[in-house]
Amino acid sequence: MRKIHVIGIGAGDPDQLTLQAVKALKSTDVFFILDKGEVKSDLVQLRRDLLDAHIPEGTYRLVEARDPERDRSAEGAAYSPAVGDWRSARADVYQRLIAEELGEEESGAFLVWGDPSLYDSTLGILEEVLDRGVVAFEYDVVPGISSVSALAARHRTGLNRVARPVQITTGRRLAEGFPEDVDDVVVMLDAHQVFRQYADESIDIYWGAYIGTPDEILVSGPLADTAPRIERLRSEARERKGWIMDTYLLRRHPRGRSGG
Amino acid sequence: MRKIHVIGIGAGDPDQLTLQAVKALKSTDVFFILDKGEVKSDLVQLRRDLLDAHIPEGTYRLVEARDPERDRSAEGAAYSPAVGDWRSARADVYQRLIAEELGEEESGAFLVWGDPSLYDSTLGILEEVLDRGVVAFEYDVVPGISSVSALAARHRTGLNRVARPVQITTGRRLAEGFPEDVDDVVVMLDAHQVFRQYADESIDIYWGAYIGTPDEILVSGPLADTAPRIERLRSEARERKGWIMDTYLLRRHPRGRSGG
Ligand SMILES: C[S@@+](CC[C@H](N)C(=O)[O-])C[C@H]1O[C@@H](n2cnc3c(N)ncnc32)[C@H](O)[C@@H]1O
Ligand SMILES: C[S@@+](CC[C@H](N)C(=O)[O-])C[C@H]1O[C@@H](n2cnc3c(N)ncnc32)[C@H](O)[C@@H]1O
Repeated sequence: MRKIHVIGIGAGDPDQLTLQAVKALKSTDVFFILDKGEVKSDLVQLRRDLLDAHIPEGTYRLVEARDPERDRSAEGAAYSPAVGDWRSARADVYQRLIAEELGEEESGAFLVWGDPSLYDSTLGILEEVLDRGVVAFEYDVVPGISSVSALAARHRTGLNRVARPVQITTGRRLAEGFPEDVDDVVVMLDAHQVFRQYADESIDIYWGAYIGTPDEILVSGPLADTAPRIERLRSEARERKGWIMDTYLLRRHPRGRSGG
Repeated sequence: MRKIHVIGIGAGDPDQLTLQAVKALKSTDVFFILDKGEVKSDLVQLRRDLLDAHIPEGTYRLVEARDPERDRSAEGAAYSPAVGDWRSARADVYQRLIAEELGEEESGAFLVWGDPSLYDSTLGILEEVLDRGVVAFEYDVVPGISSVSALAARHRTGLNRVARPVQITTGRRLAEGFPEDVDDVVVMLDAHQVFRQYADESIDIYWGAYIGTPDEILVSGPLADTAPRIERLRSEARERKGWIMDTYLLRRHPRGRSGG
């Protein structure tokens, strides 16, 4: 039976690989690396460097493939269906890779950025491939340090306050309103700096870009004071590198209490 | 200047240490291990085993201290203040450990279960010690694999569904109602199996106890069908070992849509 490891590789710092991930890398025959084209090629290089650092060349095969683009013109209500089509196109690619590039007794791996459990489609795609019933395989998941954990560590803060919840959401969702009943909100996948929408509320922000990499930028403080600085740093960095990945925690001072 | 590492050690599987954590362990002179007494001594032993596995005996000092008990009689509204007093009593202990057991040029470490950013008071206590101004030190935080990431990996599921949020909360909070505006909820610190309260709703549960350890138990499925089984397994395990740590994801089928 073919075996697949879905390996969380951390969100930027190669030392944030776990020992379990290193073992999984060493037991892999074929690595599948999916290239989203142009801007994200730095991230493909990072994966190659990770392999170079941990496993001797010549002991594994590397298969690169083009990951189908998502139709980003589909906005708003159409968002989920567009993601669905895209997922199905990706399932075609994954199925072909597994069926054609992996021998019956071999093990393959997908290297997933951060933790596979957060805003990543690999598990959903593998389930879709299995459901189709064309190629059979077993798979396991190796958890990774997410950009959320990395953000909190670099800012030396908890995600939740004592006995209180934390929500992890997207920029798109945050644009629809600050979540109900929760004052600590982590925002990922925000291409539009939606935090600016809340700059006149009593909120602290803990922001990080390229966390764990040599380009890391961290800013924290009251949102009203820091938003313009984050905006400037973000657009400069994005200009310079051609792409950006940033995540932030918004910590709202609960009404009628002091924050902290 | 004294240095402190706050090191996330993962939630049970010793292979879920990161390479960064191993490096931090190796650069530590003094480990502080806080014993909560009786039931949790297995967890103290797990920390000792971790040290034995990664660093040669005789190259470090181990300082064990008694962690003050929390006043668990304070319920409901009084919860946060009770936690506050407890935190201050713990700050006394941490301050003494750092001032008396750590030389001016040495580095110490606190080994934090899971990820230091989730429901852990170590960072808050260290900030309180620094605020008091009696002993000075620098500190950094090494993120760890949380029980939340470990749970998701073992169940091979994402935490969020496509483009949707996920909330991480406590059993106590869940008892007050299912969170608003979010259908994926991770519950920690639930001593009362609050999921039973929602057993007649259309919800799937992904439950895990002692995740990553040889005692691991995993159950998933529709809540109505699985709740009685989880209840039985949980109380048997708790009886057998004397303590339990469990976490679960509740995935509500959004109204008017099929789950997925
Ligand atoms: C498709 S999601 C994948 C998340 C990933 N699975 C994780 O666990 O971090 C991509 C988003 O993750 C966040 N992200 C990933 N790596 C990051 C990094 N090194 N610094 C800041 N944000 C990062 C950004 O919010 C980005 O938009
Ligand atoms: C005080 S919190 C600490 C959480 C920890 N910082 C983390 O990142 O997992 C303790 C709670 O974590 C969860 N937990 C920790 N380790 C666990 C494990 N191995 N299996 C299941 N749940 C665990 C349980 O919900 C427990 O009540």
